[in-house]
Amino acid sequence: MGGDLGPAVVVEGMAKSAAINPDLRFIVHGDSAELEKHIAKRGITDRCDIRHTDDVVTMHEKPSHVMRHGKNTSMWSAIDAVRAGDATVCVSCGNTGALMAVSMIRLRKVAGVNRPAIACLWPSRNPSGFNVMLDVGADIRADQDDLLQYALMGLSYARNGFGLARPRIGLLNVGTEEHKGRAELKVAHEMIEAAAKYNDFEYVGFIEGGDIPSDRVDVIVTDGFTGNVALKTAEGTANLISGRMRESFQHSVFSRFAALLAYPALQRLKKRIDPRQANGGVFLGLNGTVVKSHGSADATGVSAAIKLAVQLAQSGFGEKLAARVASITEAGQSSEPALKTPDAAKGKSNT
Amino acid sequence: MGGDLGPAVVVEGMAKSAAINPDLRFIVHGDSAELEKHIAKRGITDRCDIRHTDDVVTMHEKPSHVMRHGKNTSMWSAIDAVRAGDATVCVSCGNTGALMAVSMIRLRKVAGVNRPAIACLWPSRNPSGFNVMLDVGADIRADQDDLLQYALMGLSYARNGFGLARPRIGLLNVGTEEHKGRAELKVAHEMIEAAAKYNDFEYVGFIEGGDIPSDRVDVIVTDGFTGNVALKTAEGTANLISGRMRESFQHSVFSRFAALLAYPALQRLKKRIDPRQANGGVFLGLNGTVVKSHGSADATGVSAAIKLAVQLAQSGFGEKLAARVASITEAGQSSEPALKTPDAAKGKSNT
Repeated sequence: MGGDLGPAVVVEGMAKSAAINPDLRFIVHGDSAELEKHIAKRGITDRCDIRHTDDVVTMHEKPSHVMRHGKNTSMWSAIDAVRAGDATVCVSCGNTGALMAVSMIRLRKVAGVNRPAIACLWPSRNPSGFNVMLDVGADIRADQDDLLQYALMGLSYARNGFGLARPRIGLLNVGTEEHKGRAELKVAHEMIEAAAKYNDFEYVGFIEGGDIPSDRVDVIVTDGFTGNVALKTAEGTANLISGRMRESFQHSVFSRFAALLAYPALQRLKKRIDPRQANGGVFLGLNGTVVKSHGSADATGVSAAIKLAVQLAQSGFGEKLAARVASITEAGQSSEPALKTPDAAKGKSNT
Repeated sequence: MGGDLGPAVVVEGMAKSAAINPDLRFIVHGDSAELEKHIAKRGITDRCDIRHTDDVVTMHEKPSHVMRHGKNTSMWSAIDAVRAGDATVCVSCGNTGALMAVSMIRLRKVAGVNRPAIACLWPSRNPSGFNVMLDVGADIRADQDDLLQYALMGLSYARNGFGLARPRIGLLNVGTEEHKGRAELKVAHEMIEAAAKYNDFEYVGFIEGGDIPSDRVDVIVTDGFTGNVALKTAEGTANLISGRMRESFQHSVFSRFAALLAYPALQRLKKRIDPRQANGGVFLGLNGTVVKSHGSADATGVSAAIKLAVQLAQSGFGEKLAARVASITEAGQSSEPALKTPDAAKGKSNT
């Protein structure tokens, strides 16, 4: 029921995905009368189970309010379907803060995780076409321990989601020199560097905003405030450039003719820079997989978020992440919550 | 002497600007033998005075070190030329932190300013083609008082630099709802809103990263850490898209032919999205105008920074900003350092 454009667009996106993937089935949560209408219109009635709820979470509701009074909402019902094992992944276009809050109380954090994070895929120059960045908005704060955990959760995502044996992790800062940045970043820099030795990843050190889409790095670690601003800034920049490209090709009769000939090249470009193709933030650190679609996603964007959910479900990502976090916290959760100690690593490499 | 590409490129940029603007003269600071050679090569010997210095500030030197030991550097000499009134504006491609540190001790802060800021121009959908964003990296911290001062300095920049009678100011956050974001942002939100009533600007409230290049706002206020990451992220995104556009048009014989026909449109586009055209961060809040060019700027970028310096010099921007900050702090600098009180505003509107 969520998203800026309402359930009609969500169901349209579901239909796009259903047409591509014949194994896909949906449990759809919300107002059954409205959902039935949209689902019938798109001809996917036999692919959907509808679970009726009376309430919805609006885009501007406070997470704390939803946690107390949200039991009868479609969002709550969707997450409970993951909790019960009925659904493999929850996909929502709704209120991010509320979705994270309900996910945390219903799915619970993986043992050893202090602060869950939202990871997004970022179009990049790497062979996979994407980098992973986290956190992009689960929380506006992150101390050094959180940043280390983000690094390790991002590591697991890159390894299982992209099949990278030895992902490269960078810590976002305002410069690459060691003396730059906030105090917690300097501490996190040392902690992640130390963790790299025993967790089979390469730490590339501090990186800058310009490195996010580069092939210098696979995983970008930052706090949720900075990550959210960076993500939305990149989307805004891409939209500005797309708009200017359109204007540029509509400038004269000649340029409109050129655009006609350039159409295949422009379409190829459009597909590669379309922010909708990278739609879907993944909640990391919970017992269950939740994909948050952009609130303003259209059917193409919703379908991209569903595609990501399918990939994560098929890779068994949720279980692997939980196992990984458990293994890296086997040395205890107190002072170094997610750091594998040299001894523990040595012990493991012998077995 | 600064910048990643060295003085040859800086002098090349000067020559570009000199060819466009016959009134422009340069005082060039650094190794006279090397500078003379480059200047002679570009044929602008009669437009330049060279001031020899033995030392240079390197890109990785700590600002604190430069403040203590930098008296014989080209950077120090360039800023002292502004201090002495010999130069109207200082332009540098050098180490940002050192440039700000030396500017602060040699030019001093304008009375009433706590923390100077660096403002950049951001390509946007507004009629001027640019929005102003600050701080983009003078300091990694900013509390509510600093954010209010940034708003008022940005207001002065937009008014004098763009001739906007009533600039619209937005505060960068991770959402537009009032309950979102860090504590200091919520306080700054109220302070800027209150200041809008008496300082003749429109406060549009919280904005998100996607709004930075939009026409919803003229001035974007944020702390230097977030601003720096956002700026570099946007540059990285623009570079990624440019690269993909090139690939897309080189894909086949047909697309290369299409690119030929599309050349004028693509050139028009390139000019409008070229990050080099928006090169130049302006230091605000000092007794003297300093423009920081991107360290990696090529001759086109250096020339753009010089163009900005000329515009600021011709508008008498430095004096106007000082006057404005003085007027908005006339009610005192203690608890509300840059807020015009209702009484003071009333008094002014009667005179």
